[in-house]
Amino acid sequence: MPTAEHDHVYKILDLVGSSETSIEDAIKNAISRASKTVREIRWFEVVQTRGHVENGAVRHFQVTLRVGFTLEE
Amino acid sequence: MPTAEHDHVYKILDLVGSSETSIEDAIKNAISRASKTVREIRWFEVVQTRGHVENGAVRHFQVTLRVGFTLEE
Amino acid sequence: MPTAEHDHVYKILDLVGSSETSIEDAIKNAISRASKTVREIRWFEVVQTRGHVENGAVRHFQVTLRVGFTLEE
Amino acid sequence: MPTAEHDHVYKILDLVGSSETSIEDAIKNAISRASKTVREIRWFEVVQTRGHVENGAVRHFQVTLRVGFTLEE
Amino acid sequence: MPTAEHDHVYKILDLVGSSETSIEDAIKNAISRASKTVREIRWFEVVQTRGHVENGAVRHFQVTLRVGFTLEE
Amino acid sequence: MPTAEHDHVYKILDLVGSSETSIEDAIKNAISRASKTVREIRWFEVVQTRGHVENGAVRHFQVTLRVGFTLEE
Amino acid sequence: MPTAEHDHVYKILDLVGSSETSIEDAIKNAISRASKTVREIRWFEVVQTRGHVENGAVRHFQVTLRVGFTLEE
Amino acid sequence: MPTAEHDHVYKILDLVGSSETSIEDAIKNAISRASKTVREIRWFEVVQTRGHVENGAVRHFQVTLRVGFTLEE
Amino acid sequence: MPTAEHDHVYKILDLVGSSETSIEDAIKNAISRASKTVREIRWFEVVQTRGHVENGAVRHFQVTLRVGFTLEE
Amino acid sequence: MPTAEHDHVYKILDLVGSSETSIEDAIKNAISRASKTVREIRWFEVVQTRGHVENGAVRHFQVTLRVGFTLEE
Amino acid sequence: MPTAEHDHVYKILDLVGSSETSIEDAIKNAISRASKTVREIRWFEVVQTRGHVENGAVRHFQVTLRVGFTLEE
Amino acid sequence: MPTAEHDHVYKILDLVGSSETSIEDAIKNAISRASKTVREIRWFEVVQTRGHVENGAVRHFQVTLRVGFTLEE
Repeated sequence: MPTAEHDHVYKILDLVGSSETSIEDAIKNAISRASKTVREIRWFEVVQTRGHVENGAVRHFQVTLRVGFTLEE
Repeated sequence: MPTAEHDHVYKILDLVGSSETSIEDAIKNAISRASKTVREIRWFEVVQTRGHVENGAVRHFQVTLRVGFTLEE
Repeated sequence: MPTAEHDHVYKILDLVGSSETSIEDAIKNAISRASKTVREIRWFEVVQTRGHVENGAVRHFQVTLRVGFTLEE
Repeated sequence: MPTAEHDHVYKILDLVGSSETSIEDAIKNAISRASKTVREIRWFEVVQTRGHVENGAVRHFQVTLRVGFTLEE
Repeated sequence: MPTAEHDHVYKILDLVGSSETSIEDAIKNAISRASKTVREIRWFEVVQTRGHVENGAVRHFQVTLRVGFTLEE
Repeated sequence: MPTAEHDHVYKILDLVGSSETSIEDAIKNAISRASKTVREIRWFEVVQTRGHVENGAVRHFQVTLRVGFTLEE
Repeated sequence: MPTAEHDHVYKILDLVGSSETSIEDAIKNAISRASKTVREIRWFEVVQTRGHVENGAVRHFQVTLRVGFTLEE
Repeated sequence: MPTAEHDHVYKILDLVGSSETSIEDAIKNAISRASKTVREIRWFEVVQTRGHVENGAVRHFQVTLRVGFTLEE
Repeated sequence: MPTAEHDHVYKILDLVGSSETSIEDAIKNAISRASKTVREIRWFEVVQTRGHVENGAVRHFQVTLRVGFTLEE
Repeated sequence: MPTAEHDHVYKILDLVGSSETSIEDAIKNAISRASKTVREIRWFEVVQTRGHVENGAVRHFQVTLRVGFTLEE
Repeated sequence: MPTAEHDHVYKILDLVGSSETSIEDAIKNAISRASKTVREIRWFEVVQTRGHVENGAVRHFQVTLRVGFTLEE
Repeated sequence: MPTAEHDHVYKILDLVGSSETSIEDAIKNAISRASKTVREIRWFEVVQTRGHVENGAVRHFQVTLRVGFTLEE
């Protein structure tokens, strides 16, 4: 949680991102998609890491995130 | 968590539904109400089940849900 | 937790109710039984849902509740 | 957890049952299905209650259970 | 959770408020800021209390809240 | 948990106290009220901090406590 | 949780027992003391194990228990 | 979790063991019974400690374990 | 949890996979190994991420997974 | 958790502070005491709030904190 | 947590002790070892109980403890 | 937790590592930095995964670890 800008109120958003490649990529996809509508995202926290399996192989990683952004005055 | 549509990013919404009848009905009321403003709800998860008591009898069931929906491109 | 009567102190009681029929019925049985000795029960919260199996069939649902009641002045 | 037969060792199995009707029905479906291969199921505990939504309506309840059964000597 | 108005569906919002003075003040700042855009906030629950330290002294208290408000019909 | 008097058995009581002023005051109100009927309270632990909001302002803090007291011989 | 007597409602009591000897002994002390005032205790569950240290040696084990007993009709 | 044999995949089994004597004995009974059918058990973790009470005295300790064993190639 | 095939009962298996390279690789190794004996694995969930250190460097990542598969009729 | 200085490794210290006055004061006492030996404390997180009761009145608040500080190069 | 000496700040240390004999012995070994370098240990809390299995028999009990000691002025 | 060297007492250290690249890299950075002052680190466990976002992109991964090392005799 960023503490440098302490006068703000943060709002927290819960998201699930996915990727065929990696956990980091699933996080980036979720952040990138959320940034289209929410400005000033500051931090995230991983809540859960799951995935989908097909024919005995991992098909997707799915990461649930809590994302904090500044409520602009 | 639906994994069939793995390229989407899901957003999660927390809701409390209530019913005088049953836990299932409280869930349905919350989903039904949320569907008025949020399209593409895909799954829910029960976080907490509570209720209200009056004169020694259960008056309402109140169910807190996490609801996941697809962020449309 | 009822907030309408905010000047009271609530006491919390933990109970296990059971029913052969449903989770809601197990909750109602516990509340009904507790109301014989505790007046002014206001709310409950489900802590755990368990059950008993006999011959491959569910025999009882057992629900652990936290029950809040007003401490009368 | 049944304590009447205290000399046994229990094994615990985790299952997910589903039903279009109710949480209780999802539990019963899981217990019923497990009973085909595991004899002597004695108790269950609900770990998580989730569900699937289609067109703004609950389509299925999905209940994750821990199921305990006696390891026969 | 208010139970007096049991026919409503509540939505839950997660916020982080901060204050140089106290935990209560951080809560009030978050509620006050959220009330600018969300009407009918009814209750809050503290999820986490953190803070920022500078030169060996507490600089801010930061409180993460879950805030419930009525979804108006 | 006080360890100085180690030969005692403690009983634990769960309470909810409230205050319009502060979290500390809600704790004190619960302890004070419980002391009317339970002697020898020794310690408390905060389990949850919640509150009630009216017209965009915090109206009460509600604190759930576990309270330990000595069972007198 | 005993499931043999499924028509009862159980009440749960939280206790802390202590012993200079062992964890089992601390449990037995708490159960024994509670049995003086509560009849029909049926099961217990260990919630926490702590202890007191003096001069670099364990002085007491302190075990917090949840104890379930039948509410007699 | 043993890390010396890092190329293996471990499987985890959940068990409940019981003993009239001690927690350690309940653990040993569960491990001993599981070893009849599962070779290469390497570690265990205590998940829950419960017990059965009769006539105001502890009758059995019941310990839930997670048990890890090597999946043989 | 896949919801597309809602008439199935899923069984959950707990596994620990390891890899010298990455968390994703440890997950894939566990899934791959389990697929040799369990058909129809559908999803996984990460329960814990640990690892082994030798001479001040990470030697292995060890990931505990819950793995869900369809119980075939 | 401060994110402005991202190249550092933080160490986390667990502390218990106490105060006769308030929760905030107990936090400040712990931080102040720790700052005598640990430089560069950056943030704290409240883990548990407890207290001591004497003669039916709160005597001390005791707050367990996790405290993060920069490991200096 | 000792409350008799309320003006102190406690520091918490996490340790893992082991014993071939019992859980209590593993706790005592950890406390005894820690007392060589840390004076004024006052209390401990069991965080986790695990163990090592060899040839189908428990070889060691391993207990993770949180240990609190007074920070001397 | 390594069980091969069962006569040791382990101490646990909590750390936060960070990396612009990956979760694994953040873990390695923390372990590497800790190894400068603590010899005989044996295992780690991931407690939390967070990160920092700037301009809609992930800037750093921050991983909180528990690190166990042997207390040398």
